[in-house]
Amino acid sequence: MSATYPLGFRAAGVTAGFKPSGSRDLGLLVGDPGTTAAALFTTNAVAAAPVEVGRDRLARGRVRAVLVNSGQANAATGSCGVDDALATSAEAAALIGADPDEVMPSSTGVIGEPLHVEQMHEAMPALVDGLSGDGGDAFARSIMTTDTVPKQATADAGPYRVGGCAKGVGMIAPNLATMLAFVTTDAAVAAGDLQRLASQRLARRFDALTVDGCSSTNDTVLVLASGAAGGEPLIPGSDGWEALAAAIDAVGESLVMQLIADGEGATHVMVVDVEGAANDDDARRTAKSVADSPLVKTAVFGGDANPGRFLQAAGAAGVPIDPSRLDVSIGGVVVARGGVIPPSYFEPASPLAEQARAAMKEAEISVWVRLGDGPGASRAYGCDLSYEYVRINGEYTT
Amino acid sequence: MSATYPLGFRAAGVTAGFKPSGSRDLGLLVGDPGTTAAALFTTNAVAAAPVEVGRDRLARGRVRAVLVNSGQANAATGSCGVDDALATSAEAAALIGADPDEVMPSSTGVIGEPLHVEQMHEAMPALVDGLSGDGGDAFARSIMTTDTVPKQATADAGPYRVGGCAKGVGMIAPNLATMLAFVTTDAAVAAGDLQRLASQRLARRFDALTVDGCSSTNDTVLVLASGAAGGEPLIPGSDGWEALAAAIDAVGESLVMQLIADGEGATHVMVVDVEGAANDDDARRTAKSVADSPLVKTAVFGGDANPGRFLQAAGAAGVPIDPSRLDVSIGGVVVARGGVIPPSYFEPASPLAEQARAAMKEAEISVWVRLGDGPGASRAYGCDLSYEYVRINGEYTT
Repeated sequence: MSATYPLGFRAAGVTAGFKPSGSRDLGLLVGDPGTTAAALFTTNAVAAAPVEVGRDRLARGRVRAVLVNSGQANAATGSCGVDDALATSAEAAALIGADPDEVMPSSTGVIGEPLHVEQMHEAMPALVDGLSGDGGDAFARSIMTTDTVPKQATADAGPYRVGGCAKGVGMIAPNLATMLAFVTTDAAVAAGDLQRLASQRLARRFDALTVDGCSSTNDTVLVLASGAAGGEPLIPGSDGWEALAAAIDAVGESLVMQLIADGEGATHVMVVDVEGAANDDDARRTAKSVADSPLVKTAVFGGDANPGRFLQAAGAAGVPIDPSRLDVSIGGVVVARGGVIPPSYFEPASPLAEQARAAMKEAEISVWVRLGDGPGASRAYGCDLSYEYVRINGEYTT
Repeated sequence: MSATYPLGFRAAGVTAGFKPSGSRDLGLLVGDPGTTAAALFTTNAVAAAPVEVGRDRLARGRVRAVLVNSGQANAATGSCGVDDALATSAEAAALIGADPDEVMPSSTGVIGEPLHVEQMHEAMPALVDGLSGDGGDAFARSIMTTDTVPKQATADAGPYRVGGCAKGVGMIAPNLATMLAFVTTDAAVAAGDLQRLASQRLARRFDALTVDGCSSTNDTVLVLASGAAGGEPLIPGSDGWEALAAAIDAVGESLVMQLIADGEGATHVMVVDVEGAANDDDARRTAKSVADSPLVKTAVFGGDANPGRFLQAAGAAGVPIDPSRLDVSIGGVVVARGGVIPPSYFEPASPLAEQARAAMKEAEISVWVRLGDGPGASRAYGCDLSYEYVRINGEYTT
C-alpha cells in the first residue's frame, strides 16, 4: 500500500517504455482536492528541470499530485527540459481535472537525455485510468531505477495514517539517477506546518543518508497531507501533533534504512553516531565524513577492523576537535579512547582486535564517535564500498 | 639522486625491520649546517605525533634533517607517541652531531601501532654510517609503503639544483598511511621566503592531489635549502628567484603526477581544470569535487563517457554557480555547453558520444570545466576507482 495507505490518495504505475527492461516506468500519485504539500529538494547547483518546476509550483501552494518518470532525469536539458516538464505535468493535470499548478513533475534516469514526451503522452490515459486507492505498490515500482526492491513504509498515529515509498540509490546510479521519496498522510496539516515537519523530521533522516556522497541533480522528498481522516488541521503543540511527527519520522527512517540496504553493491549497512560535538552541525559533518570515507567503506566491505581509518575519517571532517578527547567504538567495542588506540590492539591474537573483527562482520555495523562533552549529536547512514559498486558504475556503457 | 641531487645533502635508507617485507624502512636526509626549512602539514585534526613534533621544531627555525620510518604512523598514540618521536629523532641528531631541534621526525604506516623504538635504535648507527651524497635513491625507497615504485624528480634553475622524492598513495593506504614529500635545493633561501615558496608553489600542487579524498594523519611536505651552491640568499624579486620557484614547482608537479599514477589500483590519471570561477577557491573546490567523485572515478575506470556524472559532480561542490553557464569537455570533446548535454549525444551511434568514449580510453584523461567568466581557475589531479582499489583496501586484514 505504502503511499496510498492514508485515506485520500490514489496512485498508479504503468509501463510507458522509457526503460529497455519493460518494467513500470511512469507513476502518478494524487491527493484529494485540498491536499497540502511540502518538499525537500537537492542542493546540487545543477538542478534538474522537474526540480526547478517543482520548486516553483510548490511556492504557488496548490500541489496535490506528482507525476514521476524513470529512465530520463530531464537534467542538463536546458529550457527544452523545462518546457517538457511543464507540458507533461499539465497534461496529467488536465486528465485528472486539476490545474497545472497542482501537479508536480519528478524524474529520475539518465542526465542529459530529453524526456520521451511522445511515449509519455501515449501512456498517460492508461495511467490516469489506473489510479486507485490500492495503487501504492504499482507506483512504488514505477519509480525504481537500479533498485532491486521497492521501498515502502507505513505507520499509524492515533486516527491518522502515514505512508511512503522511495527509490534510489547510488545517489546517482550509473545512468539512472536520484533519490526520490514520497510521504503521505491523511491528517490535515497546513502547508507551512507540513514544511516544518519535513524540514525538522525528514531532512535529518534523508540528509544523513549517504551511499557515495554524491547529491544528485534530482533528489526530492515530497510530503502530501490529504486531511481525509477528518478533523481540524493539526498544528504544532496540538493534540496528535507529536504522534504524527513521530510517525512521519518512523516512515522516513524506515525508507532511509531500506535505501541504504539496497545501495549499489552494498553488503553491509553502517550507522554512524557522533556525540559530544560542539554543535549538531559539527556532529553531522563528522558523521558524514566517516560514513563517506572510501577507506572506512572498503574496511567495512572487507571486515578490516582498522581503528585508524575511523580516526582518520573523523579527523578529516574539517571540524575543529581535540583529538585527545576522541573516543571510537565499533559495535560496542571501544577501539580508541582519548585519541589513543590501545597498543595491545596490535599484538598477535589481541582479544580487543578479535572483538572488533567480530563486530565488523555484522550485517549492520554501528560506529560510535565521541568528540568531547559538547551538546551536538548526529547520525549518518552509510554502506560499504564493494567490487559490485565498481562493477555497476564502471562497467556500464552509455 | 633525487633529494641528494642538490649540493649540501646526504641521505641513506636501511632496513630496520618495521615492515614484514624486509624492504628498506628507515631513512635519513641531512642538509649541511645552515640549511633552512619550510613545511606543509596535514589539516587532519587527528595529526600524528611526528607532525606535532615537526611543527614545533620547524617553529624553532633550525630544522636541517628528517628521520623517516615506514611501517608505523605513530598516530593515535598519545603522549607516548610524542615521547617516542622526540627520543628517536634526538638519537639521530646526536649521531650526526646536531641538536635535537635540527632533526624532524616523520612517520608513515599503521595508525595506532607504536613506533618500534628498539629496532630503530639498533638500525640507527648503520643508517648514519650510510649517509652519502648518492643516498637519495635509497632514501626514496626507504619511505615507500604500498608504493610500487619510488617517486623522484630533479630540475635545474641556472646555477641551482632542485630535487625531491615522495611516497604515497591512497592518501591513507589500508594500514600503511600517508603522503610524504621531501624537496631540496642548494640555493640559499631564508626560512620565511622558503615557506612562501612552499605555500605558493607546492601547496597548490599537493593540495590538488586526490586519490580518495582522504587527508591522512601524517601528510607532510618538507622543503630544505642548503645554500651549498653559494651566493647571497635569494629573495622574491631577486635574480634567479623566479627560476628557482619554477624549478621547485616543476619538481612538485612531477612528484604529484608520479603519486597519482601509482595511486592504489589506478589505471587512469585524470587532470581536472576548472576555469571561469568567481575565485580560485571556488575553482579549487569544484575541481576536487569532480576528481573525488566516486561516480566520476568509476566512469573513468570503466571508460563510461557519461557527461551527466561530470555535471553532477561539478554541481555538488557547494559552490554557487549558474548551471546555464556550465561547459564541460573531456579530452577536448565538448559534452555539455551552457549546462545542456546535446540531445544528439543519446542517439544511437552518436559521433559526439563516440569521440567522448575514445577520449575516456586515454591513459591520462583531461577534464575541463568552465563555470562562467570569473577570474578563478584551479587544477586537480585524480585517478580512477578500480576493483583493485577495493581489493587493496578491503581485503587487507589487520
